[in-house]
Amino acid sequence: MTGAPEPQFETVAIVGMGLMGGSLGQALRQRHMAGRVIALVRRESAIQEVAAAEAADVATLDWGAVRDADLVVLTPPILSTAPVVAKLAPHLRAGALVTDVGSTKALVMEQIPPLLPDGVGFIGGHPMAGSERSGIGAARPDLFEGATWVLTRGQGSGEEHWRRLWAWVEQIGAEPVEMEAKLHDAVAARISHLPHVVAAALASAGAQGAEREWLSLMLAGGFRDTTRIAGSSPQMWRDISLANRDSLEQALNDFEQRLRAFRTALKEQDGDVLYTWFEAARKARAGLLADRSPLDPRASKQ
Amino acid sequence: MTGAPEPQFETVAIVGMGLMGGSLGQALRQRHMAGRVIALVRRESAIQEVAAAEAADVATLDWGAVRDADLVVLTPPILSTAPVVAKLAPHLRAGALVTDVGSTKALVMEQIPPLLPDGVGFIGGHPMAGSERSGIGAARPDLFEGATWVLTRGQGSGEEHWRRLWAWVEQIGAEPVEMEAKLHDAVAARISHLPHVVAAALASAGAQGAEREWLSLMLAGGFRDTTRIAGSSPQMWRDISLANRDSLEQALNDFEQRLRAFRTALKEQDGDVLYTWFEAARKARAGLLADRSPLDPRASKQ
Repeated sequence: MTGAPEPQFETVAIVGMGLMGGSLGQALRQRHMAGRVIALVRRESAIQEVAAAEAADVATLDWGAVRDADLVVLTPPILSTAPVVAKLAPHLRAGALVTDVGSTKALVMEQIPPLLPDGVGFIGGHPMAGSERSGIGAARPDLFEGATWVLTRGQGSGEEHWRRLWAWVEQIGAEPVEMEAKLHDAVAARISHLPHVVAAALASAGAQGAEREWLSLMLAGGFRDTTRIAGSSPQMWRDISLANRDSLEQALNDFEQRLRAFRTALKEQDGDVLYTWFEAARKARAGLLADRSPLDPRASKQ
Repeated sequence: MTGAPEPQFETVAIVGMGLMGGSLGQALRQRHMAGRVIALVRRESAIQEVAAAEAADVATLDWGAVRDADLVVLTPPILSTAPVVAKLAPHLRAGALVTDVGSTKALVMEQIPPLLPDGVGFIGGHPMAGSERSGIGAARPDLFEGATWVLTRGQGSGEEHWRRLWAWVEQIGAEPVEMEAKLHDAVAARISHLPHVVAAALASAGAQGAEREWLSLMLAGGFRDTTRIAGSSPQMWRDISLANRDSLEQALNDFEQRLRAFRTALKEQDGDVLYTWFEAARKARAGLLADRSPLDPRASKQ
């Protein structure tokens, strides 16, 4: 699966140590993938948390520490990424590579490269892994194992950067896939962002109503699973929604169109249409899951 | 949790052997809860399937076999329940109790009792357990363990029937709760039927679009969990939707109102409102799950 474990990057700086940053740091250390993992944090108390989670070799409030890194991984919420990079930029060393783990790609691909000094490359990244839990307490070193990890070519990064980051993702145990930013965002809206918004609406609507006291009693696995991701970080999902507004609106339109078809059939008490409607959903899901594995050879593994 | 395992009913007939009937038969046999479990099936091939699943002592196409039963459990899809009872009614013995496991209660509470001979009681039932898989192949004897099992008082059944069925549900390992039919249906619409419809719309909408070939590649746990119940039986969900139309429409209205609030905030790019919207969903879900356990003492355990 992974090649020989020779480090692609000697010193890796991870900016922000929540679920993603923490899990990444743990994975890099467990797999001996870097000579040194530096965690850049913003709260004094986070230094101890990072140490307790064994997610980095050193955690520091001094973002100048990024000067030692040949790979810098950005993990803040999407809309905080550009301000963070503006602060880091003066300290980045020539030849370094910057990447991110954000859930939308078009915005960062547009915002980040102009903020970087000459000789520093940027490649967008998005590991398709997560949890409804957030914070470093939820971190786990196997979070990315078997996950698709989207990479998007950016300005200022050459083939050498690309080749090394690709191999690095593979060494983490994930499956790198190359995608263009706009395509990524359209697909992510449909397969990830739409389900998050819908799960949240469902959780809120579920808890409504005069029968509130009985709802918990009748709550079963269906509600639990369907709304699981409604427990995710509000800040993260606010940012994703704003950063991917157009694609998300399109996905919501398609979703509401499906729901309208159901409501019409329900109002008309048309059992045949209702049956077909549920059957189509079952087939759609089964088809997507069946295609999921093995991974598509379209992924240009280099 | 359960009392001494003396059988509440000597001979139990289960009508229909899918996921629910099969799991129930397995539970009764494993727990030695009946002298005899009779499975009433409609296909010749089902006799062998029931035997292979060890879900009954005997399976038969002869529905007259119901004459031996002091408890008859109905498991067909909601809209097939009344026709099935009409066929069974002439064979039921005096003093027998009939119950069901249907996902809506008002319709069966109205339809079933008038079809039964004098001296035969009916109590509605709804175990809050299931699976996205259907058929006896998906049956498992622990399906009902820890599940809330709603019981609804019906015409023609006395306190003795009620007491025995309540104890029988407890012996299966489930938690009996008394609910009135209309209240049950309103709560079920919100906490179970709405999530099913939404998961199905999400699965269909997710699979749509020109990027279809990339969707599977980016599919992760969020989509998988949120749409899991979209894999359920279309026939069962067509029936539930039709049988609980009014409550489901009300729940859909509430859901769509939540979604509209999100879309308005998204269009206006109002980050504060979006944050609050996601945060409210997270809290609503956490509140429902926290209330879930321990079980509410409102449940009138007799």
